[in-house]
Amino acid sequence: MADRRQILMRALEGIPEVQPGDDLGALVLEALPRSGLALEDGDILVVAHKVVSKAEGRMVNLATVEPGAEAVALARELKKDPRKVEVILGESDEVLRARRHPGRPEGVLICRHRLGFICANAGVDESNVPGADWVVLLPEDPDASARNLRDQLERATGRKPGVVVTDTFGRPWRRGLVNVALGLAGVPAVVDAAGTLDAQGRTLTATAPAVADELAAAAGLLMDKAGQTPVVLVRGVRWGETGDSGRDLLRGRAENLFP
Amino acid sequence: MADRRQILMRALEGIPEVQPGDDLGALVLEALPRSGLALEDGDILVVAHKVVSKAEGRMVNLATVEPGAEAVALARELKKDPRKVEVILGESDEVLRARRHPGRPEGVLICRHRLGFICANAGVDESNVPGADWVVLLPEDPDASARNLRDQLERATGRKPGVVVTDTFGRPWRRGLVNVALGLAGVPAVVDAAGTLDAQGRTLTATAPAVADELAAAAGLLMDKAGQTPVVLVRGVRWGETGDSGRDLLRGRAENLFP
Repeated sequence: MADRRQILMRALEGIPEVQPGDDLGALVLEALPRSGLALEDGDILVVAHKVVSKAEGRMVNLATVEPGAEAVALARELKKDPRKVEVILGESDEVLRARRHPGRPEGVLICRHRLGFICANAGVDESNVPGADWVVLLPEDPDASARNLRDQLERATGRKPGVVVTDTFGRPWRRGLVNVALGLAGVPAVVDAAGTLDAQGRTLTATAPAVADELAAAAGLLMDKAGQTPVVLVRGVRWGETGDSGRDLLRGRAENLFP
Repeated sequence: MADRRQILMRALEGIPEVQPGDDLGALVLEALPRSGLALEDGDILVVAHKVVSKAEGRMVNLATVEPGAEAVALARELKKDPRKVEVILGESDEVLRARRHPGRPEGVLICRHRLGFICANAGVDESNVPGADWVVLLPEDPDASARNLRDQLERATGRKPGVVVTDTFGRPWRRGLVNVALGLAGVPAVVDAAGTLDAQGRTLTATAPAVADELAAAAGLLMDKAGQTPVVLVRGVRWGETGDSGRDLLRGRAENLFP
């Protein structure tokens, strides 16, 4: 049935290890037919930020980093590499909490990234980078990264997919990581259903699904943690074009309802 | 290609408005062929708790509720129905925060539900219930609800699907609601990849995806907010049978890394 509500997600095949300066759009365009896919209207590409960051050269060689006094002190407390802590502090507007991490070899800094994201280590991550002394940062502007990819795909295919750039974050009060949206192109951040009617004709209140985060989490089911499947095509979601930003998903301290 | 990594999600069609005492398993078994589906090994059914709670009779007629002094005071402060606040307090071990909710007609109580979930209004919700004076609670034991459904489906089909019972929660620091796992049968809560190797052969640390929450969020893309599609079949996720509980997703205050 054509109007059956179903969603298909497929991990794009054969995206190689991305290097600084690589053309991520070209890699995606090559991977689509290899994966048996042609872009369709309404498709959404969910992209792990790591390949975006690497292509954009958002990497730091720790051998070039001179840790300051604050980084050295925090690193000692948390058993972290002081050079990595220096990079984390450089990415952060604020360190909200510095904690030993139960069961992990090193502790964690919960930071407010300069883009507003509340996340561990300001998104600075050393895994999946060739050579132990490199770390990957979040993209400079994840919305712009998403838009650039989208524009390139549109120029090449005539289709205009949604793009979501993601990272895996820990969460307050809940264990484990989930993939969340950092940057958006076309796709809504939150769809506010307040004012619409439920099945009994009652007005729905406070029903505002964070569609971009649902997309990110869904694609996370197909992004293997070794980084071999960083791009997932999602087909079948009903969405309307928006100019939303990944920052539309952020609550500031004043409107944070939770303790 | 058989080993292509893809996931198919389909909302089951024609699940009717559920009433107390209804046989949810029978409704799902009827809806599967109607939706063009037969259960396969490895399938996971993601079920909005509301249909579970209704079938289990976890509903309260507010006309029968006598609010106490605490409920009356909180209700006045938050512009909420004092009878609903009384029900919320009865479901909660602790009220973590009582807040006016910006842009909403009524405020919100962020509670620790007696099962440990940190959520708005202890999961007590009035929407989608016939008659304005009824509220729906979370299931008494969401893991048991998931297991019961799974056992019933296995008896009827010989297949043993995973089951995840879900609710939509707000999140600290991020806007919008996402669907999260309350109860599990078979499905892992968190898969700890620590100690496995990344693409460069480096040991991955702190890489523990909350698979059950990713499943819940993914299915949320197909659960329309009017409650017409409360059951979603997810096919293609690689998972190994576990005895995990929805409570394995909860961080207590002591191990909550976040502010």
